[in-house]
Amino acid sequence: MIKVGIVGGTGYTGVELLRLLSQHPGAQITAVTSRKEAGQPVADLFPSLRGHLKLAFSDPASTPLTQCDLVFFATPNGIAMQEARQLLEAGVRIIDLAADFRLRDPSEWANWYGMPHVCPELLEEAVYGLPEVNRAQIITARIVANPGCYPTAVQLGFLPLVEAGIVDTDQFIADAKSGVSGAGRKNETHFLFSEAGDNFKAYGVPGHRHLPEISQGLSRVAGKPVGLTFVPHLVPMIRGIHATLYARMTSNVDLQALFEHRYQNEPFVDVLPAGSHPETRSVRASNVCRIAVHQPRQGDTVVVLSVIDNLVKGAAGQAVQNMNLMFGLPETTGLEHVPVLP
Amino acid sequence: MIKVGIVGGTGYTGVELLRLLSQHPGAQITAVTSRKEAGQPVADLFPSLRGHLKLAFSDPASTPLTQCDLVFFATPNGIAMQEARQLLEAGVRIIDLAADFRLRDPSEWANWYGMPHVCPELLEEAVYGLPEVNRAQIITARIVANPGCYPTAVQLGFLPLVEAGIVDTDQFIADAKSGVSGAGRKNETHFLFSEAGDNFKAYGVPGHRHLPEISQGLSRVAGKPVGLTFVPHLVPMIRGIHATLYARMTSNVDLQALFEHRYQNEPFVDVLPAGSHPETRSVRASNVCRIAVHQPRQGDTVVVLSVIDNLVKGAAGQAVQNMNLMFGLPETTGLEHVPVLP
Amino acid sequence: MIKVGIVGGTGYTGVELLRLLSQHPGAQITAVTSRKEAGQPVADLFPSLRGHLKLAFSDPASTPLTQCDLVFFATPNGIAMQEARQLLEAGVRIIDLAADFRLRDPSEWANWYGMPHVCPELLEEAVYGLPEVNRAQIITARIVANPGCYPTAVQLGFLPLVEAGIVDTDQFIADAKSGVSGAGRKNETHFLFSEAGDNFKAYGVPGHRHLPEISQGLSRVAGKPVGLTFVPHLVPMIRGIHATLYARMTSNVDLQALFEHRYQNEPFVDVLPAGSHPETRSVRASNVCRIAVHQPRQGDTVVVLSVIDNLVKGAAGQAVQNMNLMFGLPETTGLEHVPVLP
Amino acid sequence: MIKVGIVGGTGYTGVELLRLLSQHPGAQITAVTSRKEAGQPVADLFPSLRGHLKLAFSDPASTPLTQCDLVFFATPNGIAMQEARQLLEAGVRIIDLAADFRLRDPSEWANWYGMPHVCPELLEEAVYGLPEVNRAQIITARIVANPGCYPTAVQLGFLPLVEAGIVDTDQFIADAKSGVSGAGRKNETHFLFSEAGDNFKAYGVPGHRHLPEISQGLSRVAGKPVGLTFVPHLVPMIRGIHATLYARMTSNVDLQALFEHRYQNEPFVDVLPAGSHPETRSVRASNVCRIAVHQPRQGDTVVVLSVIDNLVKGAAGQAVQNMNLMFGLPETTGLEHVPVLP
Repeated sequence: MIKVGIVGGTGYTGVELLRLLSQHPGAQITAVTSRKEAGQPVADLFPSLRGHLKLAFSDPASTPLTQCDLVFFATPNGIAMQEARQLLEAGVRIIDLAADFRLRDPSEWANWYGMPHVCPELLEEAVYGLPEVNRAQIITARIVANPGCYPTAVQLGFLPLVEAGIVDTDQFIADAKSGVSGAGRKNETHFLFSEAGDNFKAYGVPGHRHLPEISQGLSRVAGKPVGLTFVPHLVPMIRGIHATLYARMTSNVDLQALFEHRYQNEPFVDVLPAGSHPETRSVRASNVCRIAVHQPRQGDTVVVLSVIDNLVKGAAGQAVQNMNLMFGLPETTGLEHVPVLP
Repeated sequence: MIKVGIVGGTGYTGVELLRLLSQHPGAQITAVTSRKEAGQPVADLFPSLRGHLKLAFSDPASTPLTQCDLVFFATPNGIAMQEARQLLEAGVRIIDLAADFRLRDPSEWANWYGMPHVCPELLEEAVYGLPEVNRAQIITARIVANPGCYPTAVQLGFLPLVEAGIVDTDQFIADAKSGVSGAGRKNETHFLFSEAGDNFKAYGVPGHRHLPEISQGLSRVAGKPVGLTFVPHLVPMIRGIHATLYARMTSNVDLQALFEHRYQNEPFVDVLPAGSHPETRSVRASNVCRIAVHQPRQGDTVVVLSVIDNLVKGAAGQAVQNMNLMFGLPETTGLEHVPVLP
Repeated sequence: MIKVGIVGGTGYTGVELLRLLSQHPGAQITAVTSRKEAGQPVADLFPSLRGHLKLAFSDPASTPLTQCDLVFFATPNGIAMQEARQLLEAGVRIIDLAADFRLRDPSEWANWYGMPHVCPELLEEAVYGLPEVNRAQIITARIVANPGCYPTAVQLGFLPLVEAGIVDTDQFIADAKSGVSGAGRKNETHFLFSEAGDNFKAYGVPGHRHLPEISQGLSRVAGKPVGLTFVPHLVPMIRGIHATLYARMTSNVDLQALFEHRYQNEPFVDVLPAGSHPETRSVRASNVCRIAVHQPRQGDTVVVLSVIDNLVKGAAGQAVQNMNLMFGLPETTGLEHVPVLP
Repeated sequence: MIKVGIVGGTGYTGVELLRLLSQHPGAQITAVTSRKEAGQPVADLFPSLRGHLKLAFSDPASTPLTQCDLVFFATPNGIAMQEARQLLEAGVRIIDLAADFRLRDPSEWANWYGMPHVCPELLEEAVYGLPEVNRAQIITARIVANPGCYPTAVQLGFLPLVEAGIVDTDQFIADAKSGVSGAGRKNETHFLFSEAGDNFKAYGVPGHRHLPEISQGLSRVAGKPVGLTFVPHLVPMIRGIHATLYARMTSNVDLQALFEHRYQNEPFVDVLPAGSHPETRSVRASNVCRIAVHQPRQGDTVVVLSVIDNLVKGAAGQAVQNMNLMFGLPETTGLEHVPVLP
């Protein structure tokens, strides 16, 4: 039984982690910390957990996380990096669901996140937790940087094309759409029901933090820097990401076969039959990424459609998938939920 | 392993049954019939089931349902009653998720459902499948009439009051609200996104088919006919029922204690702490009914708030709960999902 | 041309007032104040007003509101009462869209609103701005207390019954449902899209501030204190209130005729044909209240369905209606929008 | 007073036309035809029109449309072309809100719409009703082909770039998102609330009927055939289109100045300040198109964001704008609604 601690359990990735871990046969939640809610039973804040979780939030200062086998950080950016060294020294492994260990270059990190990185020496060691790319390294990692939600959907969609070397790597376009839970459980006017409901908009067009993360991932696979335009949008739904991806083909291949072959052994990537259009609800509350690939009118533009649940494969589910890998459990343990439809 | 057949698997209760049964450790789905979709893999119609269900829809005419231990009818009203006798004679037990066996009185049934009942002799035998009331009879039943969604939420809310004999049984008011999936997967203008979205309305105020079902249930417990006003409403959400129930108290008791005591051993009824307001999302995709009881300003009106997921405790989940009882499995088998929040 | 000032134009009632007044042929907006946004063009905050309003928010301290003919307060509770006296002394008339002048009894006001009233002597003078009840007094009023959204829908629904003296005044039940914009443009977790979306709940069952306001209104008409149970609910839609009202009939009358007769000359109350169920979207963005009356199964419970747009007839539209009356304009001036459907 | 007839008033573009025309100071609705609803008052089907429109639907066969000055077709594709000749011969002018006259090439029309065109000789005469491009021709047109909703948003966004000749015309990408009302008031499963709600998907990636319409428009301006990838998506909102447009710049210019200059005299195109992200709700229920232009990270990809209300500027509002031009009224007559926000 893996002894698990969760730092910051009051946001949406936190409650989703609790949903998944409270029924995980190989993990035991030993602590959920929150400065603000310390002492309150977790199920008082999230009644969906009544009967499934008896723990109360505990104060981070007095919680012996060093006795855990694994600590998940479901915190705002900038927290995990402050506590990582101490936990590692105590032999605790770490999965950070925030962005602290996602970028290799500390100065780039500082640029995008607006603060200096406090443990740049750990950036090199940290493994980017996209199992479909880095499975082997995740197994032995001490620190896993759980990918962002957009980067998961976008990279899984572009990967087969980049690996096959059949597209112009200077002209990637990722037009991505996210449900509002992607913004977290934050009190900001933009995310009020009366603002985000019955409405659609792009945001962050001049630059979004997931841009360097995606570029880094694609560049590593391509073996050279790539050119990417990334435009995120806010959709009036709760969960779900839909990435519509565009690339220019430089040589013609059977795209359907390429994608099916690439992901044939991946338990959480489902390539749909030719001509399909995946819906976000087809993965709701599950860890699956569904992908379809199109070549409209046989032109030289390939269009990939990639959907995930931003809170599962885009956050908590992928974190559990990484945990399974790190601790030698079957990769799908505790993650075989049938998507909730309708 | 219970051999299970499903008649009519193309609606929302059907796909929800498939979600639950495809992972149920004690049941094996042997057939899902649909005249219209015969031959098509179920997961082509519902991609959420890809990887979880290999079956194709089969034609009812050529499907040997008599070899099943149990057949679920997830059909429109009027189908199950035509096939019940033959199945029973073959030793197959039946759970009807439609309304064919819910009312005891065949002429009342005919009035509300607009057709004569073809097997009135079975109405007496059929057990109304609300485990919190009829657990013992369900265990041995050959035919279980799975309750309607509104009737489940309303009866569970009123029951402790009626059983305790502390309210005026002539003046029940049930103001009930349902998500749109309660209307089924039917192509009717009223249920289009652009009609039902960002909108709220009552319907069926002159009379709704769930009225006699609720009245029958409350009357049986009260030991006399009750007076009930039932007003259903359509809410722009997918899943969930919220029943707001009003009764006049005829004697004063500790309502909180009454409700907690009544449901203390019920695995799927959760009485919230005093002062609570249950949300439908706190039971989303789970089989739980959450209830809160209020006595505003200490007057003589008691207000009960009762929420369920209409497709789970209000349909497919309750059907599985009944199956568990009928076949000697622990009642909660395959039904312990943590609600999906947010 | 009425010179109009608006105090507090950054909330939803504020922007709705601006939508209506910016095209009102008899009014001229001379100032919109906001401490926080002073200096910013109003249309920067609300791009829907681009091309329709050139004003910038001005600082309340430096805005000569005493030169207005009329000042609207679209502020939180407790602001208007602090500025009322000074404006009245300068000859300015006031319409308060908040609650400061809605209750007659200052101690009751203090109980419900949690602060002492600073100008109790004005409470007697203030006219409750429900034109269908107080039209004559509104015409000459110096201070109009614009009714709350729930109280508007509920009182218009109950009024014909109370005036006719045909219902038990001890047992009113108002089960009311509101879109989320009724909560204002406030950063509270409960009103986030991911919390309020795809969800339904009651709130404030032990006691809500609109309860004494409704009770006061009904009691005045009944000539004696009434008994009311009021349960508000939050609906996942932006605009709209649906009140489902229950009363016990003490004598039998033609309810349809009663309602039609009562409202035959009211420009903003529309009694639907017998058997109807009004939808909130049928009044979206308009000042109309639509009402249907039912007597289910000819019993002694009357059910009234009453819908308004909470931001129009429930707030800004009713305020403009009151302005029209106070300044001798035709009552419907600037308020004849066709509802936006779908 | 323009005598106006409407053929097919039971869909969403029909009811929106009625909303706009019932208050238009220069037009009088003389007939609204519907085979199916003949005899029924229009306001019975659409209660939002109660008090605003007294007409009943009339049977097309017995309605003297030849006495109108102008007939709007708010019908399915393939109807207007059958009645056009007769109306023109009687001196009636026509605005078709369907697709019958949008494409110049009758064989291309037949390919995309699956039926032969019955009056190809009129295709040459018909004017494509995008006033921002064809204002002069619209004024004198006998037949106006009202543009599709996507084509309006997409063309207005690309136009300044194409006219300026600063982008690669082989590589346009239009990633477009529409609210569900764009699908019309049709009973199809895909558009049910429980299917389209809380969900997001692309559709028609292999080919959508608006593709040739957009290509034709851009090609005409470019003076040569263009290459376009067009991917439409369904958004869980009622009204609104958001087009996210990508093009490769071939020479560098001040994009903000280019767009502002191009649209400075257009009453219904609003170029937002640099750095903006238009929201669909900022144009809800109004005839405005709001546009922002971005050049992310100063690269060679230009991103244009363009929003309209699909039922107004994307359908009924643009039709009224065309009517105003055809009959010599100020172009904005009856179209100056402030968008409804929130």
